[in-house]
Amino acid sequence: MRPIVTLTTDFGLADHYVGTMKGVILSRCPDVLLVDISHEIPPFSIYSAAYAIDQSAPYFPEGTVHVIVVDPGVGTARRPVCAEALGQYFVAPDNGVLGMVALRSGKMRVRELTNRELWLPWISPTFHGRDIFAPTGAALASGSARFEDVGPAVSRTEGLPDLQPRQVQTGVWLGRILSVDRFGNAITNLKTSDFARVALAEFAIEMGEHRVDTFCRTFGDAAPDVCFAFFGSSGYIELGINQQSAGGRLGISAGDKMTLRMQAEAVRE
Amino acid sequence: MRPIVTLTTDFGLADHYVGTMKGVILSRCPDVLLVDISHEIPPFSIYSAAYAIDQSAPYFPEGTVHVIVVDPGVGTARRPVCAEALGQYFVAPDNGVLGMVALRSGKMRVRELTNRELWLPWISPTFHGRDIFAPTGAALASGSARFEDVGPAVSRTEGLPDLQPRQVQTGVWLGRILSVDRFGNAITNLKTSDFARVALAEFAIEMGEHRVDTFCRTFGDAAPDVCFAFFGSSGYIELGINQQSAGGRLGISAGDKMTLRMQAEAVRE
Amino acid sequence: MRPIVTLTTDFGLADHYVGTMKGVILSRCPDVLLVDISHEIPPFSIYSAAYAIDQSAPYFPEGTVHVIVVDPGVGTARRPVCAEALGQYFVAPDNGVLGMVALRSGKMRVRELTNRELWLPWISPTFHGRDIFAPTGAALASGSARFEDVGPAVSRTEGLPDLQPRQVQTGVWLGRILSVDRFGNAITNLKTSDFARVALAEFAIEMGEHRVDTFCRTFGDAAPDVCFAFFGSSGYIELGINQQSAGGRLGISAGDKMTLRMQAEAVRE
Repeated sequence: MRPIVTLTTDFGLADHYVGTMKGVILSRCPDVLLVDISHEIPPFSIYSAAYAIDQSAPYFPEGTVHVIVVDPGVGTARRPVCAEALGQYFVAPDNGVLGMVALRSGKMRVRELTNRELWLPWISPTFHGRDIFAPTGAALASGSARFEDVGPAVSRTEGLPDLQPRQVQTGVWLGRILSVDRFGNAITNLKTSDFARVALAEFAIEMGEHRVDTFCRTFGDAAPDVCFAFFGSSGYIELGINQQSAGGRLGISAGDKMTLRMQAEAVRE
Repeated sequence: MRPIVTLTTDFGLADHYVGTMKGVILSRCPDVLLVDISHEIPPFSIYSAAYAIDQSAPYFPEGTVHVIVVDPGVGTARRPVCAEALGQYFVAPDNGVLGMVALRSGKMRVRELTNRELWLPWISPTFHGRDIFAPTGAALASGSARFEDVGPAVSRTEGLPDLQPRQVQTGVWLGRILSVDRFGNAITNLKTSDFARVALAEFAIEMGEHRVDTFCRTFGDAAPDVCFAFFGSSGYIELGINQQSAGGRLGISAGDKMTLRMQAEAVRE
Repeated sequence: MRPIVTLTTDFGLADHYVGTMKGVILSRCPDVLLVDISHEIPPFSIYSAAYAIDQSAPYFPEGTVHVIVVDPGVGTARRPVCAEALGQYFVAPDNGVLGMVALRSGKMRVRELTNRELWLPWISPTFHGRDIFAPTGAALASGSARFEDVGPAVSRTEGLPDLQPRQVQTGVWLGRILSVDRFGNAITNLKTSDFARVALAEFAIEMGEHRVDTFCRTFGDAAPDVCFAFFGSSGYIELGINQQSAGGRLGISAGDKMTLRMQAEAVRE
């Protein structure tokens, strides 16, 4: 089985940064298969990165190594870590970016990256993707290091606020927007399986002064110009407008808060 | 020979969609070589996608599997298909996106994708790239399915209007803009080999109120600020302006109509 | 060892150009590993391309073939060349794009590409990336051609003006901006190792009417809204503003001139 390393960053594709990280990985794991998840994560958007890696990881084979570098705190005291979950490895700063994978997997083992023998010899203050995360990921992928070799186990990792919707009173849940995609669809953190009644009951999703209270099965069912909720391919309730950007219309972005109001009898918690 | 799968979509690179499709393909065809043609096809632009895959496919080895997902009709009745042409496979929605490859190859065999054993177990209403096209492409690339296995042969596929210029009266042809590239060059559907006389004769290419009637061999020959026709690397007549965007100046985009006027004696039809 | 070919262009990712080049390379070197350095080099920006390939190449294994196509002079008399440096190959137009690698390596052997047997049979006037550079790079990567086979040695290549800062009087150096990255950080051509005193002494970096005279170790140390100099991961002095674009604020882009003023006793030349 060829080793696979995926990359998820907010580095963009205009600069050499991603190519340089790939050079580091290739030099240490020559038969690697490199896959880009995204390098256009909105700068410093931990929610977007947490969502992207959580959506894609389940479709990759066991043993895949995911390197995630969305790191507003580079150069500060935040720890670099490696997590084992879903039979895969996740190398990332400990800043919440692994929060959704942790929820999905239920159990996640985490180690702090402290083994400098796996890093580049010189560590710059601003490019840990190249100097720490890429070479550690390559060492795991090539088999030259085991999970136990990267550093000591840690018992607690940083979470992300409100990853799961929280019922605050009967029929009222506080949630978050996880991501807004290229087509302008906004992905909420309301799981389709938990809130299937949105398809049948009266409901309202509120963000600031905006309110969405229409549900459609498909974009083809939607009236023009109306923002509606639908069951997305993500497994979450999403908000969309046919041929338009719901995110733009609603003025929302990843991490923003939202409120769901709905008669609650049948909702699974 | 390592299996090759190319991807052409309008998904953009900001979201996890392309990475997730690659995970699906890798899980089913571990030694695959993945190549991105473009993921920045203008949203829902079937002309642009048809042009991109037609330009690149001839440079790929026999047996390459091309997965094309530009699919404004996802969730509606349009059929998912696989075509065999140029010794390669093309997995795509049947919405015209294979129109140019069909013209180039002359003969194209097409089958409808109906074999759900090749798909993911759960089919979302909005992400057939992940659920149908990627796994079917991977099955073909890995050899675990043959062309005959994907579903029944179909005799007719959707075309794209006016892929070939049409002579409407002596010296007048109606054509289309196939694509506008990053540099702002507009690619017409006038084949250089059919309309070589544009280099020698008086002509005019008209789009709305705009008119181009200058020909240059190279950009270096062009007067500043003048929009001119030239023989592009595409094999088609293109429209450009030195260091500027002809597409922007002319206000045109992929699929737009254009008219060529030229004395016609020597034009091959 | 699997052959590696990297690509650096200003073609963007929206069009088929990069995918087509990859098809050409794969057809000639089936077990190649393709790596994108960047395809979003600002159009025709030779400084940006020279900087990107110089930053990433040192992290790639020996024998890597780098194909660089930023080529404002395509179709003119500029020569296509291949350079050998750092134990790697660089296939590119001879327009200065290899200037920084030449500086880094000290010795660089260069040959003009004249061996048409390595090219595509038909050479378009505008797409030498596909027709000349990609197939020559693939021939080197696959081992079907040696460096000596690409064409005759040349003794002189095009440079880029002012790649190294030039002292014009005591305490005054003229330099250039090499690149502005996605985060808006501007990379100067002042090497950290040569100008380490910027961290300790009074200094001013001037660009037009703008002036930067503050140094910070990290972004966390910087006052809000203040443009400061720092030692970047590039090995050069960079200019940044916390959470903002320094390049935008200063109105500068790759290739622009800048002046450093500083008491000069301790500066290494």
